[in-house]
Amino acid sequence: MKTTVVDYLVKKLEFLGINHIFGLPGDYNFNILDAIIKSKNVEWINSTNELNAGYCADGYARIKGYGALVTTYGVGELSAINAIAGSYAESVPVIHIAGVPKTSFIKNKSIVHHNYFEADYFSYENMYKFAAKTTAYLNEKNAKDEIDRIIDVMVNEKLPVYVAIPVDVCNLEIDDFGFDKIMINKSDEINLSLVCKKIKEFFINSKNPIIFADYLVKRFNLQKELETIIKNTNASVASFLMGKGSINEQNPNYLGVYMGNVSNKNLLDAIDDSDLIITLGFLNADLNTFGFSTFKEKTPDILIEKNRTIIKGQVFNNVLIQDVVKYMAANLKETKTPLYTNNFGIKSSPGGKIKIEYLLDKIQNFLDENDVFVMETGLMSLSGAFLHLKKGMEYISQTLWGSIGWATPAAFGVNMGTNNNVILFTGDGAHQLTVQELANFFEHDLKPVIFLLNNKGYTVERVLSKDPEDKFNDITNWNYSKILEAFSNGKKYFYAKAKTFEELDNILLQLKECKGKILSYIEIEADKFDYTKEGKILTENMKKYSSSLD
Amino acid sequence: MKTTVVDYLVKKLEFLGINHIFGLPGDYNFNILDAIIKSKNVEWINSTNELNAGYCADGYARIKGYGALVTTYGVGELSAINAIAGSYAESVPVIHIAGVPKTSFIKNKSIVHHNYFEADYFSYENMYKFAAKTTAYLNEKNAKDEIDRIIDVMVNEKLPVYVAIPVDVCNLEIDDFGFDKIMINKSDEINLSLVCKKIKEFFINSKNPIIFADYLVKRFNLQKELETIIKNTNASVASFLMGKGSINEQNPNYLGVYMGNVSNKNLLDAIDDSDLIITLGFLNADLNTFGFSTFKEKTPDILIEKNRTIIKGQVFNNVLIQDVVKYMAANLKETKTPLYTNNFGIKSSPGGKIKIEYLLDKIQNFLDENDVFVMETGLMSLSGAFLHLKKGMEYISQTLWGSIGWATPAAFGVNMGTNNNVILFTGDGAHQLTVQELANFFEHDLKPVIFLLNNKGYTVERVLSKDPEDKFNDITNWNYSKILEAFSNGKKYFYAKAKTFEELDNILLQLKECKGKILSYIEIEADKFDYTKEGKILTENMKKYSSSLD
Repeated sequence: MKTTVVDYLVKKLEFLGINHIFGLPGDYNFNILDAIIKSKNVEWINSTNELNAGYCADGYARIKGYGALVTTYGVGELSAINAIAGSYAESVPVIHIAGVPKTSFIKNKSIVHHNYFEADYFSYENMYKFAAKTTAYLNEKNAKDEIDRIIDVMVNEKLPVYVAIPVDVCNLEIDDFGFDKIMINKSDEINLSLVCKKIKEFFINSKNPIIFADYLVKRFNLQKELETIIKNTNASVASFLMGKGSINEQNPNYLGVYMGNVSNKNLLDAIDDSDLIITLGFLNADLNTFGFSTFKEKTPDILIEKNRTIIKGQVFNNVLIQDVVKYMAANLKETKTPLYTNNFGIKSSPGGKIKIEYLLDKIQNFLDENDVFVMETGLMSLSGAFLHLKKGMEYISQTLWGSIGWATPAAFGVNMGTNNNVILFTGDGAHQLTVQELANFFEHDLKPVIFLLNNKGYTVERVLSKDPEDKFNDITNWNYSKILEAFSNGKKYFYAKAKTFEELDNILLQLKECKGKILSYIEIEADKFDYTKEGKILTENMKKYSSSLD
Repeated sequence: MKTTVVDYLVKKLEFLGINHIFGLPGDYNFNILDAIIKSKNVEWINSTNELNAGYCADGYARIKGYGALVTTYGVGELSAINAIAGSYAESVPVIHIAGVPKTSFIKNKSIVHHNYFEADYFSYENMYKFAAKTTAYLNEKNAKDEIDRIIDVMVNEKLPVYVAIPVDVCNLEIDDFGFDKIMINKSDEINLSLVCKKIKEFFINSKNPIIFADYLVKRFNLQKELETIIKNTNASVASFLMGKGSINEQNPNYLGVYMGNVSNKNLLDAIDDSDLIITLGFLNADLNTFGFSTFKEKTPDILIEKNRTIIKGQVFNNVLIQDVVKYMAANLKETKTPLYTNNFGIKSSPGGKIKIEYLLDKIQNFLDENDVFVMETGLMSLSGAFLHLKKGMEYISQTLWGSIGWATPAAFGVNMGTNNNVILFTGDGAHQLTVQELANFFEHDLKPVIFLLNNKGYTVERVLSKDPEDKFNDITNWNYSKILEAFSNGKKYFYAKAKTFEELDNILLQLKECKGKILSYIEIEADKFDYTKEGKILTENMKKYSSSLD
């Protein structure tokens, strides 16, 4: 059947499960937006700016598998590049579609708006070559092949891709054959079978294996397989911070998030005693290893990485993580007795003024099964490791890229992609960067619970800079209840402010009634110099690491 | 005398007249911020996000000559790249300083926060190679030479530059010799003298020359020289939209902004009759020529460009605009009688509901000498051409790059750089993208007058898209008076809303009292389908241009 370039693209995105596309209009992308709007199952969502649109698409992809945004030439696409670079850093598959001027303008080197003072139609795509896994610039000849190619890359690599579509190319006629076809990469069969055989042997000979799950388990949607592996083998399981939520934390074999030297004691003991350490999709990055403080005494025996597996130092290339994990789920049957189980008791908080140390424990009581918790970057995201998730909960954060401001729009994107309750935890410093996206929660009648920690500044920077009182760590002082009045457009919402734990307890009780029924926004005031202990220990760990390189 | 790398850089920026540096803190840029904060004459301004910081620096540079911003590695620097690309497009000299991880991390390929999943320390700089004129990545050996080099480029080219400074390089000791030295580019002497001689001859033989001034007159700070040329030669003078304000519009020889087929009739007649058309720093871009509708019958005789002059088709390379203009100011003495003077009468607006067509005329009455008018991108920026500026007024807009949202932070940057009254005219669509920068006007006790045209959406897109009612042109509905309450932090301000011209008249009277004393914010409600005629004519012009290329 005949279709157009943009209809084909939209149909292909719908096939991947994308039902919402974010972005802003511009006169070079109208044809793309028209195709989205007339599509039955894909809804266009106007974002409040392009960086936010990028964050929305990133959040959406983290919960739905894939995300998409549309921007306009130059001004739009470049505003979103930090979000796409973040998706790249954290392996979040997002497609960025930029509408660009018509081909005749390009050929004539016309200087039209959003161009440089000398006609230069390719600089923006060139920038994206450093932020996306691949880019495409469509023309009348390559349009269909290039769409297929970049979507294959996005699906196989779980990385963002970029496509520029000139105005006139949008409505060119092409055949719609293939909108539902993806060329799936395959493992090298010989290496895969070697890896599988070896893993099986290691398991047979191991008394107390531990599996550490990281972010790629989520990205390749391997949570169920992981749960099967744990069930069948009775191995212990932990996660890294970036992989938090990739295993049901109510699983009795779950030992917590591996946070190096601040990990739960039982996890550290289990590592000491373990005779087989396996990592799944592990990223050896500073915050994910709590300042390079993981695996100090003992290193992993088997590292199952995205495209290769390393067994006792021997590298097997072209072996895909999903193939190995699926093999393990189907074939590992040996039952062990886990050495440790964990005790995730909640600290009983004192009364009186809010103290950061006890804050997340309080909030934890409020969590329900299947909630989706979105955690902003900052000091609290380290404490987030110690939240004990209920069954079915998702935990979404941006640990490696750590772009403050990400969470508010990302939570909106997440919320568009799920029917479960979304809980956003953010800090005032980060929230201010992207605050306008709050208006979209109201616009689309979403009902998240938003916790805003108001401690008057960039707290993580206070911990890291020479003097916590450094002026540059202060932010402007806002009245957040008025922000809600400004954005709510007459819709109902619940706002409350807590300065003490008694107030917070009372609010959390009321909040139980509001959850899922009305947007709720809880402002929590804390002292600007009240830090979690994790911040200080992380700083020390990083200093040690840094000295080791000098 | 000995100094450090960052102290040297800050001292050099101060030497260029930079007294305020914008940006956000991050743990990789603390050493840079410390140097700024301890500096006597350079103040650190915390922006509300990095894109806004980039716009602030751009606005600041447009009024003060040069601008600077500091961001952190990856997340910070990439959020600002659209702003820097805009400075590049419009020749605004801004230096973007990014704080990046220490050299030992780079050498070791450590994956630290704000990096990709594989260590990659140069991708962000590589992106900036497409957005700035030049980039530098400092190390212990090149630091001083590279700082000198990029600042020479910024000064000579009036284009943005980028520098990445690793944490450990910041405080390396260097000699402070040269902080006040700039290597100034020079014209080719032979070509320059040929050009000057020819221009002089043309003037002697011309009866009615017209000089068209564009944006480079402002960037190279040649307004005084232009005024001298007009005074000495009695030539007629007009500007392009991007050059608006480069000539005193009260000059009797001023004929208006050349807006192609919607220009003032007297200007069009003068062009018809002129025997010598000279352009200064002209950019032949779509909006600057009102849809390529300038010079249709007659082309310029002499184009004085940034680095070359073209006389009757003959190109003289390596001739700098500032040298030519300075020669003209010093040497052209022939007095002509200008053929036309212009009548900048104000349309008398009707009463009743606000009508866009009459809006800027109303506001014009309110302008005073030396006011600085900042105009947001959008349909109204085309009408802005017809504002008749009072003596000493500056007119600042972003015509070529046209990034909606630019104006609110840019006006803040402008306001930090001037003691004159700043007037911002923006539309609701654009304002929402960067609204949080409003908080900084209060934080720094600035007193601008802000006009917000609230017509419920992206009006320029309504004009350009197939159907003005296209859903994607709608935006979320905000209560702007609450926005002010949210951001004002207890400071006084004046807010009023006009739906009719009677209300607006009344408000403008009150506003005269507030001007310069208190931040004022006037919301003007207009019908969402009430457009200026310029939008439609521009669309037709662009269609004609587009057909001519097919």
